[in-house]
Amino acid sequence: MRFGLFGGAVAKRGDETADSQGYRKFIDLVVEAESLGFHSIFLVEHHFSGSGQVSSSLNLLSYLAARTSAIRLGTAVTVLPWHNPVLIAEQAATVDLLSGGRLDFGVGKGYRDIEFEGFRIPKEEGLPRYEESVDLIRKSWLSDERFDHDGRFWSFRNIVVEPPVVQKPHPPLWSAAGTDESIARVAKSGFNILLDHFATDARTRERLKVWRDACAETGRPLRAEELAVARGLTITRTEEEYEDAIRARVERSAKMAEDYGALPGLRRDAQPETFAVQDMSNPDSALIGTPDRIVERLQRLQSWGVEYVLILLPGGVETLREFSREIMPAFETQADAAQ
Amino acid sequence: MRFGLFGGAVAKRGDETADSQGYRKFIDLVVEAESLGFHSIFLVEHHFSGSGQVSSSLNLLSYLAARTSAIRLGTAVTVLPWHNPVLIAEQAATVDLLSGGRLDFGVGKGYRDIEFEGFRIPKEEGLPRYEESVDLIRKSWLSDERFDHDGRFWSFRNIVVEPPVVQKPHPPLWSAAGTDESIARVAKSGFNILLDHFATDARTRERLKVWRDACAETGRPLRAEELAVARGLTITRTEEEYEDAIRARVERSAKMAEDYGALPGLRRDAQPETFAVQDMSNPDSALIGTPDRIVERLQRLQSWGVEYVLILLPGGVETLREFSREIMPAFETQADAAQ
Repeated sequence: MRFGLFGGAVAKRGDETADSQGYRKFIDLVVEAESLGFHSIFLVEHHFSGSGQVSSSLNLLSYLAARTSAIRLGTAVTVLPWHNPVLIAEQAATVDLLSGGRLDFGVGKGYRDIEFEGFRIPKEEGLPRYEESVDLIRKSWLSDERFDHDGRFWSFRNIVVEPPVVQKPHPPLWSAAGTDESIARVAKSGFNILLDHFATDARTRERLKVWRDACAETGRPLRAEELAVARGLTITRTEEEYEDAIRARVERSAKMAEDYGALPGLRRDAQPETFAVQDMSNPDSALIGTPDRIVERLQRLQSWGVEYVLILLPGGVETLREFSREIMPAFETQADAAQ
Repeated sequence: MRFGLFGGAVAKRGDETADSQGYRKFIDLVVEAESLGFHSIFLVEHHFSGSGQVSSSLNLLSYLAARTSAIRLGTAVTVLPWHNPVLIAEQAATVDLLSGGRLDFGVGKGYRDIEFEGFRIPKEEGLPRYEESVDLIRKSWLSDERFDHDGRFWSFRNIVVEPPVVQKPHPPLWSAAGTDESIARVAKSGFNILLDHFATDARTRERLKVWRDACAETGRPLRAEELAVARGLTITRTEEEYEDAIRARVERSAKMAEDYGALPGLRRDAQPETFAVQDMSNPDSALIGTPDRIVERLQRLQSWGVEYVLILLPGGVETLREFSREIMPAFETQADAAQ
């Protein structure tokens, strides 16, 4: 089984010392995570949050490319409707080049009201802008020849996009998906898939079945490394710590839903295929508990075919050390152990 | 006197091995330049050139931020009309944060026909787009409060731009300028100024006077570090090498003019305030010759008030080593020597 990280640094306005420390601390954590055996870091990107979330994930990944040598560098996700597709293709290609082919490019259509409002993009344009951008980014990466583009939202004339990507034919594209319909769409698109950390294991199991069926239907071979499940992590040592962790998780999720509207896989209107706020009290959608209990949880996911779990960045690096020491060994393959 | 570098890496499509080597070689050169005493690297950014020029300079600077600790990291220039001004403000702020406040943000309105055509932006919109962007970038960096923007080309609603910049009030803005009029405009704007490597020393001297007069008129104190003059460099040891270097320079400039139309400070129609192609055979607009001769050239610039020269990146690092060894010591101040 393979473990990655999912999260970001924080740098709030008006708290300047904390700012660079927030990034510094995050960078040190990723550098250590690489040596602890983590396979990837997927960076969250948001704009105008006011809470200091990373807004320019490809720049932070470029920095990390220089500080690391093996860990894969991902976005989760770059919201394409905010970006000029050709500029973002250039930027992503540059990260791929600088990192020696370690970019995992996660993309999305956006969901936060505050971002749609900020960029003055009507929410209903999210999907068509996303679709146009995906086509154009792929073409930018693949075409050695100059080309034109005349789309609904963008047009370009006589362009060739440099630098070339290192990974061929192009860096893996990842997409988050929560509903059965969107999971099937991702399977057909050839993208890799990110499953969120809000869904319970039961719902995750359903999603895995939808993914397998859709891959079979479209003739896509099942590759375990092309599907990652995100999970929160809190290692607890006592019953009291356990109760606190559950409570903190519920409060955090409720606040996010309040601040940003619908979350992916978590909607207030509780559509049958998604997930409702009250279910956050169900602990089995996160890795909370003693190391033994977390190993069991992961083994259960593994028994359903999950071989790649993204751990939500915990507060400090100590949790990652504990995870590496007490949990990872249970999932070492013979190939890993031989290295 | 202070010396920086000006140039970029190369990664052409269809020549994949050379690509990453081109960036790798450039990165190693910058890392060594820092230890040789160079003060800055200003990165050129271009799009769709087909010759593999850097298209995403802020990503490359983010990488360099991790590999260096003192050298200043500049763009020369980021052409603002190609970019969403808020996204570029976020990206530049991120580089400033990651580098511990080493960003020099050079901006321009664009001049290459192939880029205006590629982005489908009418050339006459270059200046108004530039002006709107500059205002919006400054506001993005300066405002701790949410704000709206309703401009001719862009609108945003209820945004706050993160992360905060490290340099206060904001990273230095640099602008290239060639004509008397544009030099005076830069002096008034509060920007620092880049003078190009096409103009002869005589024309550069005139420009310096225009700068001084405009600063005086606008009440701006003259600070030597706010004006940089770019210069090509070829250290030659024999008369034959000298002749070859002059010839190569003329050919290179003619080709650039042919490929990209007018160059800044170099126009085919030879306006009185600019510079005509045939003058490229005048060697005194570049630092060509023996180390002694180059020292003399630089002393002449210094006698006119120039205290900051950007060296066009030569082919290899050996030239920088020679420059550091044989030329820099003649300009060491007592403060430098004491370090």
